[in-house]
Amino acid sequence: MAKVLTSQAEDFPRWYQDVVSKAQLAENGPAKGQQVIRPTGFALWERMVDELDERIKETGTENASFPLLIPESYFAKEADHVEGFAPEVWMVTHGGGKELEEKLAVRPTSEAIIGEYMAKWTKSYRDLPLLLNQWANVMRYELRTRLFLRSSEFLWQEGHTAHASYEDAHAFTLRILHDVYADFMENVLAVPVLRGIKTVDERFAGALNTFCVEAFMRDNKALQMGTSHELGQNFSKAFNIQFQGEDGQQHLAWTTSWGTSTRMVGGLIMCHGDDSGLRVPPNLAPVQAHVMVVKDSDEVHAEAERIHAALKAAGVRAKLDLRGDVAFGRRAVDAELKGYPVRIEIGPRDLKEGQATIARRIAGTKEPVALDGVVKAVEAALEEDQKALFDEALDRRVSATREVATLAEAVEVAQTGLARVPWSAVGVEGEAEAAKSGVTVRCL
Amino acid sequence: MAKVLTSQAEDFPRWYQDVVSKAQLAENGPAKGQQVIRPTGFALWERMVDELDERIKETGTENASFPLLIPESYFAKEADHVEGFAPEVWMVTHGGGKELEEKLAVRPTSEAIIGEYMAKWTKSYRDLPLLLNQWANVMRYELRTRLFLRSSEFLWQEGHTAHASYEDAHAFTLRILHDVYADFMENVLAVPVLRGIKTVDERFAGALNTFCVEAFMRDNKALQMGTSHELGQNFSKAFNIQFQGEDGQQHLAWTTSWGTSTRMVGGLIMCHGDDSGLRVPPNLAPVQAHVMVVKDSDEVHAEAERIHAALKAAGVRAKLDLRGDVAFGRRAVDAELKGYPVRIEIGPRDLKEGQATIARRIAGTKEPVALDGVVKAVEAALEEDQKALFDEALDRRVSATREVATLAEAVEVAQTGLARVPWSAVGVEGEAEAAKSGVTVRCL
Ligand SMILES: [Zn+2]
Ligand SMILES: [Zn+2]
Repeated sequence: MAKVLTSQAEDFPRWYQDVVSKAQLAENGPAKGQQVIRPTGFALWERMVDELDERIKETGTENASFPLLIPESYFAKEADHVEGFAPEVWMVTHGGGKELEEKLAVRPTSEAIIGEYMAKWTKSYRDLPLLLNQWANVMRYELRTRLFLRSSEFLWQEGHTAHASYEDAHAFTLRILHDVYADFMENVLAVPVLRGIKTVDERFAGALNTFCVEAFMRDNKALQMGTSHELGQNFSKAFNIQFQGEDGQQHLAWTTSWGTSTRMVGGLIMCHGDDSGLRVPPNLAPVQAHVMVVKDSDEVHAEAERIHAALKAAGVRAKLDLRGDVAFGRRAVDAELKGYPVRIEIGPRDLKEGQATIARRIAGTKEPVALDGVVKAVEAALEEDQKALFDEALDRRVSATREVATLAEAVEVAQTGLARVPWSAVGVEGEAEAAKSGVTVRCL
Repeated sequence: MAKVLTSQAEDFPRWYQDVVSKAQLAENGPAKGQQVIRPTGFALWERMVDELDERIKETGTENASFPLLIPESYFAKEADHVEGFAPEVWMVTHGGGKELEEKLAVRPTSEAIIGEYMAKWTKSYRDLPLLLNQWANVMRYELRTRLFLRSSEFLWQEGHTAHASYEDAHAFTLRILHDVYADFMENVLAVPVLRGIKTVDERFAGALNTFCVEAFMRDNKALQMGTSHELGQNFSKAFNIQFQGEDGQQHLAWTTSWGTSTRMVGGLIMCHGDDSGLRVPPNLAPVQAHVMVVKDSDEVHAEAERIHAALKAAGVRAKLDLRGDVAFGRRAVDAELKGYPVRIEIGPRDLKEGQATIARRIAGTKEPVALDGVVKAVEAALEEDQKALFDEALDRRVSATREVATLAEAVEVAQTGLARVPWSAVGVEGEAEAAKSGVTVRCL
């Protein structure tokens, strides 16, 4: 097949750009750092939303919707928060042709506005825990942007909860980290993650502690895939989130916030993609099985439709491509680019032999299968290849990780992989030192 | 039970406000016309999204995501469009602490930005039809606002499609109107709708024709529930959406756009609500069956859990309320307010007699049912009450509609209902005349 992408070895960032563009996942928007997410890319995000939303709801969290625009004065209430976000804010100054009395920030995150409402809704310990989430767009002004990975606008979910005790808030922060984020990433995205705590430097503006999940990409760099923050009583103090306890006294609540975003689409591409394009894990894939006619004829057409229907009936997310008038090679390259896990190819010759060809994007195999065995073969391939993709990613990370004893060694190893070093050998000064070599402390 | 709402007969707008507030559906946001949609209200919207999204996808339309902020210059490209929307726009002038070179409008709708991309993606007739939809937030500056019905920010879906011929575009506009919007509203929301064409005055800014679905509320007024616009070649000309036809020549595409929004939540409340609160149609209801312990005991608790599990296993969306320590009366009033279709009440006395009590919000009945017959009884009630709610709404509209021959009669009838009058008796001048009496021409 023709080479359509820059290879990863040659230029990884260029390869990434090529995949995003040629698989028609996204493109740049008209203004600085904006992105247009095209149907093929958006379908990946939709599947992520479905799977995450289910897990979020299992924790008892409910979805809600808060305003896009936040009065400037709300940010001022929590000192660290405003300091952290003020430089990144996009500001609305006019509405209906007139200048507004108070400027409104396009939300970069919603702690400030949700805190205000939590204070209204939290009267008694019976109202707690208050577990809220919203799926929304947010904006942060960015100078250097890359599609999905760093953009001025992105889509995300942001969870915001209030609890009666430190212990309950702490436990919930970790529950989200493990049962929602890590579970989803490992079992659906097939991306093995490291779970840890951010250093003070990398912490969310206004948080006590930021927990995170980090994944290892094929360029031997780590990518943050999600964060879960213990906000302690910082926001409760700023927004006066109080409740009457069982003891009849007023107490300040303990709050948390946690988020994952369209950045995960970027992580997915960089963790699993290869020189032919994307490889989408079966459990995520919006299209798990792609039924293609090689060359069209009435019989081929009918058989392709039959297989497509049988796959759907078996619960497989299947897509049917009957475009016999478009060159097969071109369509096959496109399918490889988009990374559909399994391709079922049917042509007149296959049909005569009572078989179809199954091409597996992850295993890289291409084999004939008897027509009445297609559904079973597809199901088996999906299950095997989900596991294979995870194992491959895990192996890659394990081989790239070195246990080292000193900061100097860690900085050296980090040029080509991950270093595991005792925090006592790094410390806050060491972190600043390492940053000079472009190395960051990701997880404690 | 205590009266918690203003009655509809006394003051309908006040009743509406009371329901929205006391059923905890939504509240006002901090800035002008903003709204906070609370979990109970948002769950209604989430169900609407699920059902509509399924129908939208069945038409072959795919979801995508376009930027929130649109350069001012984009609006200028289609003259009617800019004229219609300019007065309603919220404007971003600063980002990252600096003034922007070009002002960016918070999208009031996305024809302008999607048109720009359609032009890039539409090269040949093979690329058509191009069927796109996005679920998004939009903002329009409003002076007089009401939660869900008219707000500065709302959530919606906006479909945008491009076609190779007038006929194909026209047919698609109607397909959305009938197979997606009307089908959803009548079969899920149990809201009978009138389908028609807007007059020139009420048409979407930049459209050839605006089709709409209108529903009849309990205050005898019509509410627009959705619109589907034929944009002709207006936007294709403005944005240069061209394609090479089968004839090898360049042609302008024919485009459409269509939308429904969180306003439907307001319509649902006003079409079905009564003096005790909301009545949610079973096919929509996020909670179809609400299992409540009247007074808690180990046996009651166990039986309530068993029934809850049995309902879920049967595919009923069920919720379990085990708060035996909160007064039953208070919880029952809350359930009536929130309008869950069926309530299953279990107390120690019921249990002794081997039964539970089934309270139906729509039929208004309350009857004992043997414990092993609960699931069947619930399923039957859900089916019956979905139909009953639709029939009731249809009857109400039919009795309130009068066939009249002249404009004067129509204006009189419109004070308390709907008038059906020949357009030849109204005309553009008549429409302006009627407007003086606060009467609008809704459907042709
Ligand atoms: Zn970490
Ligand atoms: Zn109409």
